[in-house]
Amino acid sequence: MKPVCLVIGAGAGIGGTVGKRFAKEGYHAVLCRRTDQAGLDKLVDAIESEGGSASGFLMNAIAADSIEERVAQVEADVGPIEVAIYNLGAQIGDRSLDNTSAKAFEMGWRLGTLGLFRLAKAACPYMVERGGGTLIVTSATAAVRGNAGQHSHAAAMGGRRLLCQTLNAELSPRNIHVAHVVVDGSVDAPDTLGKMLGAERFQALRDTKGAEDGLMLPERIADTYWHIAGQHRSVWTHELDLRSFSDLPWWNH
Amino acid sequence: MKPVCLVIGAGAGIGGTVGKRFAKEGYHAVLCRRTDQAGLDKLVDAIESEGGSASGFLMNAIAADSIEERVAQVEADVGPIEVAIYNLGAQIGDRSLDNTSAKAFEMGWRLGTLGLFRLAKAACPYMVERGGGTLIVTSATAAVRGNAGQHSHAAAMGGRRLLCQTLNAELSPRNIHVAHVVVDGSVDAPDTLGKMLGAERFQALRDTKGAEDGLMLPERIADTYWHIAGQHRSVWTHELDLRSFSDLPWWNH
Amino acid sequence: MKPVCLVIGAGAGIGGTVGKRFAKEGYHAVLCRRTDQAGLDKLVDAIESEGGSASGFLMNAIAADSIEERVAQVEADVGPIEVAIYNLGAQIGDRSLDNTSAKAFEMGWRLGTLGLFRLAKAACPYMVERGGGTLIVTSATAAVRGNAGQHSHAAAMGGRRLLCQTLNAELSPRNIHVAHVVVDGSVDAPDTLGKMLGAERFQALRDTKGAEDGLMLPERIADTYWHIAGQHRSVWTHELDLRSFSDLPWWNH
Amino acid sequence: MKPVCLVIGAGAGIGGTVGKRFAKEGYHAVLCRRTDQAGLDKLVDAIESEGGSASGFLMNAIAADSIEERVAQVEADVGPIEVAIYNLGAQIGDRSLDNTSAKAFEMGWRLGTLGLFRLAKAACPYMVERGGGTLIVTSATAAVRGNAGQHSHAAAMGGRRLLCQTLNAELSPRNIHVAHVVVDGSVDAPDTLGKMLGAERFQALRDTKGAEDGLMLPERIADTYWHIAGQHRSVWTHELDLRSFSDLPWWNH
Repeated sequence: MKPVCLVIGAGAGIGGTVGKRFAKEGYHAVLCRRTDQAGLDKLVDAIESEGGSASGFLMNAIAADSIEERVAQVEADVGPIEVAIYNLGAQIGDRSLDNTSAKAFEMGWRLGTLGLFRLAKAACPYMVERGGGTLIVTSATAAVRGNAGQHSHAAAMGGRRLLCQTLNAELSPRNIHVAHVVVDGSVDAPDTLGKMLGAERFQALRDTKGAEDGLMLPERIADTYWHIAGQHRSVWTHELDLRSFSDLPWWNH
Repeated sequence: MKPVCLVIGAGAGIGGTVGKRFAKEGYHAVLCRRTDQAGLDKLVDAIESEGGSASGFLMNAIAADSIEERVAQVEADVGPIEVAIYNLGAQIGDRSLDNTSAKAFEMGWRLGTLGLFRLAKAACPYMVERGGGTLIVTSATAAVRGNAGQHSHAAAMGGRRLLCQTLNAELSPRNIHVAHVVVDGSVDAPDTLGKMLGAERFQALRDTKGAEDGLMLPERIADTYWHIAGQHRSVWTHELDLRSFSDLPWWNH
Repeated sequence: MKPVCLVIGAGAGIGGTVGKRFAKEGYHAVLCRRTDQAGLDKLVDAIESEGGSASGFLMNAIAADSIEERVAQVEADVGPIEVAIYNLGAQIGDRSLDNTSAKAFEMGWRLGTLGLFRLAKAACPYMVERGGGTLIVTSATAAVRGNAGQHSHAAAMGGRRLLCQTLNAELSPRNIHVAHVVVDGSVDAPDTLGKMLGAERFQALRDTKGAEDGLMLPERIADTYWHIAGQHRSVWTHELDLRSFSDLPWWNH
Repeated sequence: MKPVCLVIGAGAGIGGTVGKRFAKEGYHAVLCRRTDQAGLDKLVDAIESEGGSASGFLMNAIAADSIEERVAQVEADVGPIEVAIYNLGAQIGDRSLDNTSAKAFEMGWRLGTLGLFRLAKAACPYMVERGGGTLIVTSATAAVRGNAGQHSHAAAMGGRRLLCQTLNAELSPRNIHVAHVVVDGSVDAPDTLGKMLGAERFQALRDTKGAEDGLMLPERIADTYWHIAGQHRSVWTHELDLRSFSDLPWWNH
């Protein structure tokens, strides 16, 4: 039975690409996303066509018990969740206080903070029981500073970051690696930009102009997620930042 | 009509004491706390007996519309809220992930993060309309780092801190001073310790041994809140820390 | 004998103005600056004409023994240094790596970091001996993040900030208050801008447009220095930031 | 001609081990350390016996022109410095202010801050000329917070960290990857502990008890340095932390 890499938030960007990478390295990828059965099927097919193993589930992560039931089902029927990736975003664009409803603020928290708590609470006891595991959390600039119009997003991501620290404090001594990845830039979206340009031109863009324009390539982000998951437990990284060479770090804007 | 200092979370510690201080300086203090009508009355009486002006309200800050209605009523009937103090804590002690329920996690967020958002959304439009105001937010060590067992608290306070930054980004240019105060230590509780010891011995303790044992005096914290509220707008402080001289800063533990 | 407030870096901006303020509150101000005897005399005269007490010294802070000898002489002849203000800047403008000489880099360190170490080493033993004191360090945005062209300045100020933390760790339990003030903006310069405009227009500018343009008023910065020096030891601030309401915090640029 | 990985501070811990790793991956390692010709020879021999390529130089990094001349000589005679590792430590143990001489404080700065500036100034123009390169800087907990007795070390490392940020701001757009690695723990020292225990027992310790006791394995640190150097330029990490799973992060002590 293959070890499982569970991805919460497996679109065509970071989440799906990280799932692909872990599948390529021998994991069974369990890919969860809210909508787009066709996109999900395509992702699973792509993994299987390369000889990998994957399952896809449409899942509304903010629905009661959704994450909890998925974790239980995977552990029961698919395999041990050795790696969990929490990749749900909570960005809703810049909105003034007046234009940020309490509902939008709560939605940010449900996606940005509570969902991670629920995933950790559901999946980590299995990891503790088995003596180890990895939880990688995709995060954002808004986790380290609040900017204008980011009331919902920054509150949610600021909570996410410190939750990662409390999880690490409890779980690291139990051999569970918790990592908080600050994605400080715009991630390249192959499904949209790639289709527009066609494969060849798109690849050229990504190799050169893409990064020069500050686009971050999901495949390369996946390299770092894979590296984190493989770090020896004597040298674990809890937090790192990622951005394009051509982009200003958040502290230099 | 006196300007109003509205305190959300006005117990006998920081909140009530800050209210007293602003009343002494000429504000009408509106003191809101969840329970203890007797304690609230005593606080209002103490202010009035010193020639100050105050009103007290029992208020469940997490109930729907509670903060919003209080703000509207005060603005309509009492006076302009020139200073708002958000002083609700969300500490529930150290609890392992297993012992932290989703309900406790949500309660932390409602008290720690959402309540501040609601207060800002309710009170700041009046301030914007009048051309200025002050919002001081009591915060905690858990707003800057997550420690073992602090899942609910640190997620809530980490969100609170970054929310203060987004509020500041939007409101500072409109002449509203938003300050985030990191209370990095244990606050002296006069109602409990003071009663135990009697007035004289308690005062002696507070002057010397108290601070030496790391107790922070609410009256002295109020000095700094008053200073913040009075800072000229060319030199506003957004964030500062406070701790006893005898206590280790969080980064040195 | 009056207690002494020693200011290293007492020009017409923050340093001289803080000295004036402490003199007004009953301290003898000892004002040290590198050049401009006339400016120094004017500052001392201004203090004395308001009934205060002050001495002025031209001092090259990077010369061997300069700070050490001044501290010893003041303690011997003038009075106990209860408050020391380290206010030397090390900004040399933005310079590329290529245009930053090793000499300029070293000068930044001598002014930005070493001078503070020397002041602490010279003055704090007297404070320890007497059982208390205050050391306030003016600092800059470059102490919390490095920006393009700031090689010398940011390295020096980053060192200054962490030195303040090590000083605090050792001295705070001995009742010496060490505070690091992040001045995150441009300080109003009365000697230059004020003379250009004339007193009346200048005052009008400072009251309104000045802060609106992001100018920070030294007199108002001095209010906060005075507050810090007076904080009760149960509630000391180690770090705070200051900026104009109209200016973006460094993390929002 | 092989690309060069230049290591300043190539002892038997992180520096030498990182050099070995880059040599194994096809680089010519240029190893510089202050003393111990025998240890240096052993390191070069070990690399060559595995089919790698290396040179070793005794070098006093604080001597005038030492780093500059080494860089020029390597670029002229050995090959292009594609990767530079700055690995000099500046820890001198905990010393009170009284026991920290100005000389010790300056030595900390020369090793901790100035040497990196000199390396960047010497090596980066070649990288800029060639259109790219990598500079990885080993750093320490003292770069992010100052603790008791760390006056010299924290001032030096705090300067180092912000210098890395200014270097990154200038060099990243020119395709030079600057990374600041916060080594937040004790690094395993094979030369000492390993010899005491013998090879077999030592390996057992490192695999299990070693990390459990908080020892960080240099070989595994080298994995992360190698990963950093290979990151695609659309997803560069500027800062990451490393510690053993069994060790508390600095913010939780």
